[in-house]
Amino acid sequence: MSEDKYQKGIKNLNIMNKDSFKNLKNLLNDVAPDMTRYVVEFPYGEIYSRPGLDLKTRELVTISALTSIGSAQTQLEDHVQGALNVGCSRQEIIEVIIQMTVYAGFPAAINGLLAAKKVFENRDQK
Amino acid sequence: MSEDKYQKGIKNLNIMNKDSFKNLKNLLNDVAPDMTRYVVEFPYGEIYSRPGLDLKTRELVTISALTSIGSAQTQLEDHVQGALNVGCSRQEIIEVIIQMTVYAGFPAAINGLLAAKKVFENRDQK
Amino acid sequence: MSEDKYQKGIKNLNIMNKDSFKNLKNLLNDVAPDMTRYVVEFPYGEIYSRPGLDLKTRELVTISALTSIGSAQTQLEDHVQGALNVGCSRQEIIEVIIQMTVYAGFPAAINGLLAAKKVFENRDQK
Amino acid sequence: MSEDKYQKGIKNLNIMNKDSFKNLKNLLNDVAPDMTRYVVEFPYGEIYSRPGLDLKTRELVTISALTSIGSAQTQLEDHVQGALNVGCSRQEIIEVIIQMTVYAGFPAAINGLLAAKKVFENRDQK
Amino acid sequence: MSEDKYQKGIKNLNIMNKDSFKNLKNLLNDVAPDMTRYVVEFPYGEIYSRPGLDLKTRELVTISALTSIGSAQTQLEDHVQGALNVGCSRQEIIEVIIQMTVYAGFPAAINGLLAAKKVFENRDQK
Amino acid sequence: MSEDKYQKGIKNLNIMNKDSFKNLKNLLNDVAPDMTRYVVEFPYGEIYSRPGLDLKTRELVTISALTSIGSAQTQLEDHVQGALNVGCSRQEIIEVIIQMTVYAGFPAAINGLLAAKKVFENRDQK
Repeated sequence: MSEDKYQKGIKNLNIMNKDSFKNLKNLLNDVAPDMTRYVVEFPYGEIYSRPGLDLKTRELVTISALTSIGSAQTQLEDHVQGALNVGCSRQEIIEVIIQMTVYAGFPAAINGLLAAKKVFENRDQK
Repeated sequence: MSEDKYQKGIKNLNIMNKDSFKNLKNLLNDVAPDMTRYVVEFPYGEIYSRPGLDLKTRELVTISALTSIGSAQTQLEDHVQGALNVGCSRQEIIEVIIQMTVYAGFPAAINGLLAAKKVFENRDQK
Repeated sequence: MSEDKYQKGIKNLNIMNKDSFKNLKNLLNDVAPDMTRYVVEFPYGEIYSRPGLDLKTRELVTISALTSIGSAQTQLEDHVQGALNVGCSRQEIIEVIIQMTVYAGFPAAINGLLAAKKVFENRDQK
Repeated sequence: MSEDKYQKGIKNLNIMNKDSFKNLKNLLNDVAPDMTRYVVEFPYGEIYSRPGLDLKTRELVTISALTSIGSAQTQLEDHVQGALNVGCSRQEIIEVIIQMTVYAGFPAAINGLLAAKKVFENRDQK
Repeated sequence: MSEDKYQKGIKNLNIMNKDSFKNLKNLLNDVAPDMTRYVVEFPYGEIYSRPGLDLKTRELVTISALTSIGSAQTQLEDHVQGALNVGCSRQEIIEVIIQMTVYAGFPAAINGLLAAKKVFENRDQK
Repeated sequence: MSEDKYQKGIKNLNIMNKDSFKNLKNLLNDVAPDMTRYVVEFPYGEIYSRPGLDLKTRELVTISALTSIGSAQTQLEDHVQGALNVGCSRQEIIEVIIQMTVYAGFPAAINGLLAAKKVFENRDQK
């Protein structure tokens, strides 16, 4: 049931990235409220609820994908947050992004590192 | 020293994906022999030799990146091989690729799954 | 409820592209059976079931997206099929792809036209 | 004749998006004046002048393409404007962008929705 | 005048890549004959006719772009042909593609090298 | 030897783009100091040190690649700087970017032109 998927999604979002979801919900509320529901139900209720891979690894593979895609800096920052929230170390995150030099080129990796740096600095200032 | 980096790279390639490197070397030998050296020295001698992340996780983040990039099917197949060679389970690989549905869309994830399927079937036939 | 979404998805797939779904299901059956379920539930059960846009327009915007993405030729062919199945004319499909010259460049548009041509020829031979 | 194509292009731009063209012309005037001419003649004088697809559908397929490409937010905003100017409803635009979740992933679709939201809010403030 | 542009385009195509244009024309003839005209008029009649950059450099910058884009292998092969036809050396072409390792990653550069190798081998067999 | 490669890289960076490297080094210093070393050693110490293509052509092919990739505006600006520093004319740079209209579409080329314009204006104000 979707009800169930929605609950699972909210539970995962509370663990992984409560703040950025709250922010997204506020942003999309008036133009596309259903999109917020899809975010809860599909990525978080369905995919991140799957067994077979722990949340730490799931966040790291998302970080490499978003670094490679290159045009989703906000979402990359959100998942650097998410990775830290589920227990990844800063070093692990940096290693993943550096490795993308090989697969997506130096500019993509450098932009990824700057996204991580921004998140790290925000956390240090709190 | 590069000498050292080359040796480290070859050592990593022997563990991770000896066959696909041998194949690449044969292919590039006449047009761009230096490229083979760069592959050994930079990705394998430098990046995959870094501490801070185990080879299993390194292969999984490469698989998500290549699935998202979408236009490097041969290299994706090579890294599915590499992931299996360093001890990732088939399920872990499949989980990573399915997750890319969220970040790169359904077509990219489906093409990634078909790459993995191809590698799995080749290994089963040996 | 997911049950409901799955039924809606199958209903849409039967209208839009029964054959390519059957083919996909066979391909993914052993490696990622859940992926087939996601395809039914999310794109077809959820998105293509939304009001506010008819199926013809939905197929045309998918064709422009896949032409622009450039690395999903199989899925582009499937949606050219889908577009024809829901009543788009060949001319409409060709117009959409030609227009992508402007946004994704000539090579992407030409590859898109060749995908459409392949589908048209297959249908003419039946 | 190009003369003719230029006139047709200006006519289309006056209907579709007079303001963003004026802005572009000012921006490119000193570095690449020919580029402004190409914009008038090829996309607007040639492609958008073709029969076989109405301007509303042409704008919607452009919106899905730009949402999928992901690195052309300014142009996406311009075409959200253009779509509204030729008579697309806000809902139709939002539906197209939401659908891109399936083909280009959630981050691309979310960024597309935020572009649309920005345009809607600007229009509401006038 | 377009007439003029078409003539200029054909003239450039005869110098740069007569065979691949003939092939393209045959392929698109039935589905999108106008597309062939656009290819002649815009890239070849307009862009490659511009002063300020010689045809050799124009072919090399196209090769780096297509290598980076990654999903236009046929067009990349055509432009490797074109580059050789206007006087680029094999070494210059290979250097351009190797350099893309830095900007688009190793897989894109390797696939680019394999496209060049294919063209070189075809020419050697004639 | 890497020592040697690092020296070669620094030498090239001093010629090509001293300021943007200094800036990058400052930015990455705390999160990924090794990345700065890789930038020196691989692109500048290895690739830009290769014979077979002069630095002017190397910068122009990088500009076309980054324009096409579309999500690396900062790096594109850096290489417009680099191109001017090694002797490319503004016209040559503009020609390369305009040409990308054909391969990567109008939005990518327009965004590339705006990056070049920004660099030109900064230099004029000094």
